[in-house]
Amino acid sequence: MTAQPTAEPIEGVYLCDHLDLPRLFAPTLDHVPGLRVYAPADVPDPARIRFALAWRPSPRAFDPFTGLSLVQSIASGVDGILSSASLPDQAQVARVRDPGQAHVMAGFAVWHVVWHHRGMGNYVRNAANGEWKRTSFGALVPPSDLTVGVLGYGLMGRTIAEAVAKLGFNVIAASNTDRSGTGAVQVVSGADACQIVAAKADFLINVLPLTDATRGLINADFLDRMKAGAVLIHLGRGEHVIEDDLLAALEQGHIGGASLDVFSTEPLPQDHPFWRHPKVLVTPHEASVLPAAAVVASLQQSLHETQAGLPLSTGVDRRKGY
Amino acid sequence: MTAQPTAEPIEGVYLCDHLDLPRLFAPTLDHVPGLRVYAPADVPDPARIRFALAWRPSPRAFDPFTGLSLVQSIASGVDGILSSASLPDQAQVARVRDPGQAHVMAGFAVWHVVWHHRGMGNYVRNAANGEWKRTSFGALVPPSDLTVGVLGYGLMGRTIAEAVAKLGFNVIAASNTDRSGTGAVQVVSGADACQIVAAKADFLINVLPLTDATRGLINADFLDRMKAGAVLIHLGRGEHVIEDDLLAALEQGHIGGASLDVFSTEPLPQDHPFWRHPKVLVTPHEASVLPAAAVVASLQQSLHETQAGLPLSTGVDRRKGY
Repeated sequence: MTAQPTAEPIEGVYLCDHLDLPRLFAPTLDHVPGLRVYAPADVPDPARIRFALAWRPSPRAFDPFTGLSLVQSIASGVDGILSSASLPDQAQVARVRDPGQAHVMAGFAVWHVVWHHRGMGNYVRNAANGEWKRTSFGALVPPSDLTVGVLGYGLMGRTIAEAVAKLGFNVIAASNTDRSGTGAVQVVSGADACQIVAAKADFLINVLPLTDATRGLINADFLDRMKAGAVLIHLGRGEHVIEDDLLAALEQGHIGGASLDVFSTEPLPQDHPFWRHPKVLVTPHEASVLPAAAVVASLQQSLHETQAGLPLSTGVDRRKGY
Repeated sequence: MTAQPTAEPIEGVYLCDHLDLPRLFAPTLDHVPGLRVYAPADVPDPARIRFALAWRPSPRAFDPFTGLSLVQSIASGVDGILSSASLPDQAQVARVRDPGQAHVMAGFAVWHVVWHHRGMGNYVRNAANGEWKRTSFGALVPPSDLTVGVLGYGLMGRTIAEAVAKLGFNVIAASNTDRSGTGAVQVVSGADACQIVAAKADFLINVLPLTDATRGLINADFLDRMKAGAVLIHLGRGEHVIEDDLLAALEQGHIGGASLDVFSTEPLPQDHPFWRHPKVLVTPHEASVLPAAAVVASLQQSLHETQAGLPLSTGVDRRKGY
């Protein structure tokens, strides 16, 4: 009996300055046969690194790794990877596209629609004070008289739109590509799709990817076209919103409320007026949370496809930005 | 030209000690031709009263109205009407069955599922303190690993079940009658249906009607059969729950949390421990709120059917209790 030749493990590196990726993923990745993933400081030979598991890598993070063929995002957004100056041209970029994550995002989005629609914050506050105070009776606008707009109609946007439709709201979604809606969801595409949807929405949910076309989209002009009293539920990227414009629209009362999960500076600084605004609910960029297992499964799929020379099933078009 | 004979208006009475029904409904009802609805003290001739618009009438409320043929509930529950000692045998009882109300209820139910699943209370509290604190990352159980149980599978239960299923949870519902589920919803019927569903649920939503069979259903034994750490979302009737048993199960930690909208005594007394329990969120019996227009439309439909000798489309089986 001869010993089987041991295949060399494929080597990878964690690249992120903001999250402790080894803590999050090593417990799972260390059990995957044939892989070895290092923190940058522990890499024995940078030239042997074939893939990176990354989130918001620093501008020069990729420099040492000249043999990189795959950069796997730990999330569905890849703007923080594509914007790294050192991202090598030859590397393919993959994102995570997980139905479970879309469901978690949809639950979060729906929760904020109901938070604003029903004034749930009043109930939470009254409960804390032991106060029985009926507030909705006779004063509630029925969902069938309200429209929820969704900006973005990929897996996330579609899952959100369908969940909201099940609560009786009218739903209209903006898609970058020419898609048709499913059942209760109306889809608008084309250059002005986001503006058209925004003008019709009582609740506007943003789950766009961050690209050159969407950066700064939600500015004074955009907010101005929204319905008086409309609510913004912002789960995309901080850079979509000109925050001072949003603050002004909230102060004027033209925007009736907001749920904000992402910001141009994260963590949102403690003295930022969003924290204290009575119509704003701030959450710490946790609208969707990926289980580590889903990220690892996505990495394995991408590695398999890279090695087999197949197109990546969750590959990113670097020019489009998603 | 002869004057058209003017038909006598049909006369009705508001019967409720708890809500100011004339304030809620007169603005709509006063514009309906052919109807005249009085507060009890203003009724000119009790014998001419043909219908009552009622919610929790007092035990002797029906006594003066000997010619009553219809009692229209302002809500989908009729237990407070059927339990009135003076409800005349000859009167038919109708409830409201409004898809809009079911949607509002579903939004409320879904909100509480996400409240507990995502620990949204932490975000709300941290936001009030201006604290950016990520809590879910890597620690969230995906919806696909969790089961939501729904007790009751009429219009309300079905609407809730379908909305929750769209968020990726497994859904199982208990029906009193032999029904089949739709797509993602598994339906259990039969005598033990509620117990079977309760034993499988991580989140258990109660929207049963109050009947002799469901009074006191959620007692120590029932809670004991639930999964350790399960959450109760109670939107039915206060009398479904033995409140001391629930409190004990919460204290022991066997029940991991609760959202309670209905109570054996309403308003819930200020010194009740439910208010202060950290795992309990109390709301003031407003899970579903009917727009006045839907109640009025239901009344008109019931009156039309009564006068035409047709079976009531939302008629109540007084023996079954719903």
